Parts: sequence; structure tokens; C-alpha cells
Amino acid sequence: SKSFKIAVLPGDGIGPEVTGEALKVLQLVASKVADVELDVQAYDFGGCAIDSTGDPLPQATLNACKEADAILMGAIGGPKWGVNSKVRPEQGLLALRKELGLYANIRPASFASDSLLDNSPLKPSIAQGVDIIVVRELIGGAYFGKRKEHSVAPDQDTAWDTMIYSVPEIQRITRVAAQIALSANPPLPIHSIDKANVLASSRLWRKVVTETLQAEYPQLALDHQLVDSAAMIIVASPRKLNGVILTENLFGDILSDESSVIPGSLGLLPSASLAGAPSLPSSPSFKPTPGLYEPIHGSAPDIAGQGIANPIGTILSAAMLLRYSLGLEREAKAIEDAVRKVLDHENVGGLGLRTKDLGGNVKTTEMGDKIVEVL
Amino acid sequence: SKSFKIAVLPGDGIGPEVTGEALKVLQLVASKVADVELDVQAYDFGGCAIDSTGDPLPQATLNACKEADAILMGAIGGPKWGVNSKVRPEQGLLALRKELGLYANIRPASFASDSLLDNSPLKPSIAQGVDIIVVRELIGGAYFGKRKEHSVAPDQDTAWDTMIYSVPEIQRITRVAAQIALSANPPLPIHSIDKANVLASSRLWRKVVTETLQAEYPQLALDHQLVDSAAMIIVASPRKLNGVILTENLFGDILSDESSVIPGSLGLLPSASLAGAPSLPSSPSFKPTPGLYEPIHGSAPDIAGQGIANPIGTILSAAMLLRYSLGLEREAKAIEDAVRKVLDHENVGGLGLRTKDLGGNVKTTEMGDKIVEVL
Ligand SMILES: CC(C)[C@H](C(=O)O)[C@@H](O)C(=O)O
Ligand SMILES: CC(C)[C@H](C(=O)O)[C@@H](O)C(=O)O
Repeated sequence: SKSFKIAVLPGDGIGPEVTGEALKVLQLVASKVADVELDVQAYDFGGCAIDSTGDPLPQATLNACKEADAILMGAIGGPKWGVNSKVRPEQGLLALRKELGLYANIRPASFASDSLLDNSPLKPSIAQGVDIIVVRELIGGAYFGKRKEHSVAPDQDTAWDTMIYSVPEIQRITRVAAQIALSANPPLPIHSIDKANVLASSRLWRKVVTETLQAEYPQLALDHQLVDSAAMIIVASPRKLNGVILTENLFGDILSDESSVIPGSLGLLPSASLAGAPSLPSSPSFKPTPGLYEPIHGSAPDIAGQGIANPIGTILSAAMLLRYSLGLEREAKAIEDAVRKVLDHENVGGLGLRTKDLGGNVKTTEMGDKIVEVL
Repeated sequence: SKSFKIAVLPGDGIGPEVTGEALKVLQLVASKVADVELDVQAYDFGGCAIDSTGDPLPQATLNACKEADAILMGAIGGPKWGVNSKVRPEQGLLALRKELGLYANIRPASFASDSLLDNSPLKPSIAQGVDIIVVRELIGGAYFGKRKEHSVAPDQDTAWDTMIYSVPEIQRITRVAAQIALSANPPLPIHSIDKANVLASSRLWRKVVTETLQAEYPQLALDHQLVDSAAMIIVASPRKLNGVILTENLFGDILSDESSVIPGSLGLLPSASLAGAPSLPSSPSFKPTPGLYEPIHGSAPDIAGQGIANPIGTILSAAMLLRYSLGLEREAKAIEDAVRKVLDHENVGGLGLRTKDLGGNVKTTEMGDKIVEVL
């Protein structure tokens, strides 16, 4: 029987609470799928790791993550380790992404259930049917280019960062977007976002995205939008960007967060950060992709320990883990269906459940238990 | 009597139509304010200048702009001069900003009239009362830092841009934001936006903004937001950012466009690009600020020549011109009041007017005439 190593990084704040519920779901899969064994171990990461070891990414955690088939993360950070601290939790996350080569961040923004339309800040007529998957390059651009802090000589009076991309970096993230686009039937259109009317790195981005898709995925529809215009469209008529948004690190940081508020609660949304292009579900030979899976919400220190956080973002992240790193597409789909069922108003018998972020009073563990029960 | 030189750059597409209406308003001011004479001249700029001279910013236009007290622009660009053309209209705009030292871009996003709430993509409960002024640094950062195109040796395989800021560049834009904040009563809070958890230029930004305001404007409230978080707040709960958003060039490009869709039509919104900090309306000695004033919408080639464009963004830009470059605060306010009256539903007698972008069928010239009449 196949055995997979899963490293769990519960992190800070509500992190341990939400990963707890996602682990229930993973354990269920392990017990129901005959030939799968999951070896699940938790490690210190983020603020709690700073407290215990002085390092947000201790060597033992990094080693375990390198050996694991997949990583499930909760959330990190908190006021205790704020912007003015010397060592900060985010540094651990950036280092982990770089060390593991997690170059592809996948963030869907869509309604797990139509019954959630009311929670969107957008008018229902605008929000209905929004179904966007942001594919963000995660270890290039201004995040990892050469930089100069203000206090470092020479040229004392300035600080700078370099937005830099190479051809292979753009090619590989384009292939990830293409594989995601092809995993839907019919394939999704790709909207590539850049600022090619100003930036040299964006002009290269546009060129390489165009050439790579033309050469390797000529069947996919492609258009290009400027980042300022995309930021408008996401609010004014987001369905125009339905499909895959493909963009570089900094623009992806901004646009994925912007689009994530459309479905009404950050608590609902999952993410995957992959070190390779995912296999197609229809492909006969699954090739596993190492990956880090986490909900998009933060550690929410204000509600930590109260048992009221929404575990759905983490549970859906576990579904992505099964899909991309373990090749268990059927189980991933089953989790997504169970989440939809539990949220849908039309279902009777204790369903149409809502945690506090969605205006209800269902507890974290109740939500997790119900999803397990439906599964 | 005081005489002011106004250079008009009608530009492309609907540019000439909308500047035509704003000029009616300026002419009215000139004829009604006893001691003011306006010397108004139009110049080629943008796509039409490329067609006539090969250069989007011909020398004669640049000279006239340098000599003018203020510049009123329409809009530039169109499919004829697309991303693949060697010479593009935007290059003229970027060069004009740099040549005139227009470092401060001011873009309000608010409802000229509550009757427009229905046009917002946001739910009325979220959009109501949004009143944001974006102050964007306009001639620094990645727009004007050193860059390398892909095709230039050495290091053939990459392209890069530099996001660079100096201390004085951040200081002067901070002072502009402070003057804008102080021109309201009570003064507006300042929300400074950066990505200080990742970028060195953002860490310098945060430091200099904080120190400048503490030293020179200690009475103003200041908070800091990360750009990804700000992009979420603008959609989810934009009133939290009411006041002045102060940010660098690239983030300002994205966030000002994002916030501009909240009021329901780009056709309504004005902008100013200034070469200095504006005088306070209450100040006894007005110091003029050279500036370029333009609506935020584009040249809309699809509706050009039909006489259906909304001239309000340009007319409100003319109001900003009177305020910041000519010191005619009372006249600026009068224009803003007239626009509100013409838009308000409560007004009877042919008011509550709507151009096509707002779902009505009032023509460009009718809207301009009505505003002049109300004035
Ligand atoms: C914590 C921070 C460094 C990180 C980023 O900017 O990438 C976060 O905003 C994210 O999007 O995962
Ligand atoms: C046309 C373009 C270069 C310009 C910019 O990015 O500054 C525009 O988007 C703007 O915001 O005025």
C-alpha cells in the first residue's frame, strides 16, 4: 500500500484549530482508501518557532518539509512578532517557499455554494458566477531580486528593489497555468496580467507567456491585461476574468487578495504552492507535485482559542493536497462536494451551516465534524 | 487683472469632446470673475501628435506646457498606436510628467451625488459614504528606475526594473498628502500603503512618511497598510480607508484604478498631477502649483465622435485646475456644487441628468450646457 508523509505546520493564532479539522478529513481519507497510508507529523513554524528556537523556520522543520510528500499549514504571525521585530514569521514562509522551490501559487476565488452570494461585498448581479483561479509566480520578481536597504552604503539616500524575471522562470509558471486551464472541461481561458506599457520585466513576461502557450498549448485562449486595468475589472465585472489569471509575484500578491474578498469570507478559500506543474486528472500517469497547502486567511489572533474560526479554507486546502501531491482526485472532489453540501441552504437536516465569519454561530469543530459526517 | 495661460491637450478619441465641455466652464469663470483673464490654447499630444509629427510629445507642445500656468488634458491612445507600435501615446504622458516634475497625482474617489450609489458594483451598504483621495507619487519608483530589456546584453536571459526611492522624493509627496489632508475640516487621516514586510524601498517609504508627518504635521492621524491588504479593504470595507491614501507610483497606479470603480462610472472622476504641494484654501497667501489636469477615463475609441461621452470627469478636473493652479477655490467649489445639482435625482426641472455610461441618454454637450446653466 502507498504511504505518504504529510508535514503539518499548525503555526500561530487560529492555525492549530483549523489544521485540526483538516486533519480529521485527511484521516478519514486514509482510513477509507484501501491502499493509502498517511504518516502525519506536526512541526514548529512561524511565531511559535521564533519563541521556541529563535528561528521562524527551524532546521528540523525545514528538513521534515523537504522529506514530506506534502505540507499542510495553518497560519502564522501575530502582534507579538510585528513589523518592528528583528525576526518575523513571514521570513520563515518566504524562506520555506524559496528552499522548496514552490514557484507556483494557486488560489481559486469562487463561491463554494451559491447560498454565499449574500456575503459578497459586490452586488449579487456582479458577483454571481465568479470563478477565478489566480496562478501567481511565487519565488521571483521583486520578492527575491537584489535589493538595497536605506542604511547600507554607498548611495545612502535611497533604497531599492529589483523586479527581475528570467525566461525559464516565466516558462515554468506559464506551464502550470496551462495545466490548470486544461484540467477543466472545456479548458479555461488564460488572462495574463502585466504592466508591459511601462516595465521591461513585464514586456519579457508578455513575450514568454505568449510564445510558450503558442508553442506548447495552442488550444488555450489567451489575453493580456494591464495590472491597473485588471484591478478595476475584478471589482467592476469580475466574470470577465473567469478562468485562470496568470501573473508575477507582486501583482499576484495584490490581485489574489483583491479577488479573494469577492466570495464573502476569507475563511472559505484554500491555496496551494507547488514545486512543479500539476498532472491532469485525466492523465493515465499521475506525477506527484510537492506542495504547501494553506488557507488564505491569517492567524486572526483576536479570535484565537475561541473555537469559532472557519475551518473550510483549510479543509479545502487539504483537498488540493490530495489532488496535486497525492493524486487522489476522487477524494479531493468528494471533500469539495461535502463542503458545498454543508453550506447549501437548500439542504435540510442541520445543513446550511455558518461559522461566525459568515454570520452564523457554528463552532470550528462542529463544522469539521459535519463535513466528515457528510463525507 | 490677472492673466493665466492654460494649455489644452485634447488628445485622442473622446478627448476633444470632453475637453470642449470643460472649456465652456472655464470660459464662464473667465467672464464672470472680474480680475481673471484666461489665455487658452490647444496643442497636439498623444496619438494625434504621433500621426502629425511622429512624436507623442512634440517640442512645441512641451514648450507650451512649460510656459503654461496649468494644463488641461482630455485622453490619449487608441488601437492605432497599440502595444506593438514603436512609438506610443503613453510615452508622451510619462515624458510630460517627468519633464514638468509632476510628482504628485491626486485622485479622489467619492460619490459626486448619492443618487449614483446604484451605479456602484458594490452593495449600497458597502459603497455609501466612500470618500477616498489617492495621493500617488508619479515620477519615481519602478516607472523611472534603471531597467534592462530582455534583448540587451549582458545577461541575455533576464529583464529587470528597479523600484527606487530617495528620502527627498518620499518627503515631498508626504507633504502633498498632508496639505490635502489639512484642507478638509476636520483634517483627514492618512493611510500610507507599502509592502514593508518584503521590499527595501517600502521600508524606507514607511520610515520617511512616519518621520516627516511626526516632525511637520504631528496633528494628522497616520496608519500603515500593506498593499495586498489595502487591495482587499478597498472592496470589502472601503470606508475604512476614507481620507487620504498615500502611496508610491506602481501601487498607486493599481489602487487608484481599483478605487475609482466604486463610484460607478470612470466618466465621473477627475485627477490632478502637481509639481508642488498645494496651498491650503484657508491660507492668506496662495502659492500656485503648476499642474496637469485630466479625467481618469481613457480615450474610449469605441464611442468617439458620437457625442455621448460623459464630460463630468473633465469638468471636475477643470475645477481642480482652478483650485490648485489658479487659486480660485470659490469657483472650484461652485463647479463641484453645480455638478452635484445636475446629477441629483431630487432636483426637478430637467435635472438628475445621466449620460450613457450612467444608463441615461443625455449627450455630452447637453450635460456641459446644463452645468454651465446651473453655474
Ligand atoms: C506574508 C507575506 C510575505 C506574503 C506575501 O506577500 O507573499 C503573503 O501576503 C502572501 O500572499 O502569502
Ligand atoms: C498610461 C500609463 C503609463 C499610466 C500609468 O501607468 O501611470 C496610466 O495607467 C495612469 O495611471 O495614468
